[in-house]
Amino acid sequence: MRISARNRLKGKIVEVKKGQTTAHVRIDVNGMVVTAAITNDAVDELGLKVGQEAYAVIKASDVMVGLD
Amino acid sequence: MRISARNRLKGKIVEVKKGQTTAHVRIDVNGMVVTAAITNDAVDELGLKVGQEAYAVIKASDVMVGLD
Amino acid sequence: MRISARNRLKGKIVEVKKGQTTAHVRIDVNGMVVTAAITNDAVDELGLKVGQEAYAVIKASDVMVGLD
Amino acid sequence: MRISARNRLKGKIVEVKKGQTTAHVRIDVNGMVVTAAITNDAVDELGLKVGQEAYAVIKASDVMVGLD
Amino acid sequence: MRISARNRLKGKIVEVKKGQTTAHVRIDVNGMVVTAAITNDAVDELGLKVGQEAYAVIKASDVMVGLD
Amino acid sequence: MRISARNRLKGKIVEVKKGQTTAHVRIDVNGMVVTAAITNDAVDELGLKVGQEAYAVIKASDVMVGLD
Repeated sequence: MRISARNRLKGKIVEVKKGQTTAHVRIDVNGMVVTAAITNDAVDELGLKVGQEAYAVIKASDVMVGLD
Repeated sequence: MRISARNRLKGKIVEVKKGQTTAHVRIDVNGMVVTAAITNDAVDELGLKVGQEAYAVIKASDVMVGLD
Repeated sequence: MRISARNRLKGKIVEVKKGQTTAHVRIDVNGMVVTAAITNDAVDELGLKVGQEAYAVIKASDVMVGLD
Repeated sequence: MRISARNRLKGKIVEVKKGQTTAHVRIDVNGMVVTAAITNDAVDELGLKVGQEAYAVIKASDVMVGLD
Repeated sequence: MRISARNRLKGKIVEVKKGQTTAHVRIDVNGMVVTAAITNDAVDELGLKVGQEAYAVIKASDVMVGLD
Repeated sequence: MRISARNRLKGKIVEVKKGQTTAHVRIDVNGMVVTAAITNDAVDELGLKVGQEAYAVIKASDVMVGLD
């Protein structure tokens, strides 16, 4: 599927941690680790595993800007 | 302010485009461009300008995972 | 791309309305019209047009439950 | 309460699964199942149960568009 | 409608500013001004006007925590 | 960090409840309790505790408007 979300950051999955309903998936994107909180069901359906290539996908309206 | 958002990607602002109420700010993070849709008011308050160092800040629950 | 978002509702685009930065795309899903607010850039990149088959894609953590 | 959220999809609850803090509620909307991740507290306060009529409520800025 | 969103902050509308597609509505909640970015369509459908009593409604998964 | 999020409501933490991956943090803001669903990791990193002064931080595009 092609998706309207503006941000698709390619990397490699470095951690998959499931809770009771919500899982945390960490993706290393060029040395920065991006954390995604998704459903356990999505982890199972996509078969997400450490070492896989994957994208962190983020809608532009969910990105804020910060300054030091 | 220290913030709970898990994802703070450091980069440099490469575009600031204001609409009537919503602005798009693009931040180059290690060669990947991240787009943020924020209010014009936030752009003005923070004085966001091309060339500034800035962070793309994203709550973990707003990150999805995609596979090729 | 396969995506972790749990909700992918298939329908047909019935309206594309661009603002200065933000566009509204309406998708008829079995007679219910779903409204998406996305960037103009996404509309252009995907070439979204009235009459196209498309999905409304929604992350589970963005869905609320209401009762009458 | 009348709410600004553009998308209110009427259906029937087909599953309520509570985790430690986050619950998944599935609503059958004309044969499509929509998944909502909400707090356990919300499930309790609203008394959500399988078989109830309910709405999946989604803000337009949380809807993406996908193409095959 | 009763809604699962955990946060419903009662106040009074102090500003309604429409753009081409997105409007900003400001609600004074006990002296704090909360800004909502919603569709122009929602403003029209609800007939939002300065001086009205209204709620700022926010899903718990969209709230972050900050420390000084 | 200065952040683009428009809404920063100052209060005091009145509850921190961790699940397996997701925590609920409640902040009393002038007598209104605001609930945030954040990661356990964020709770640990920030050292969030009952009694601390903290802000509920919310992006404007995540705020809806409701009417009675």
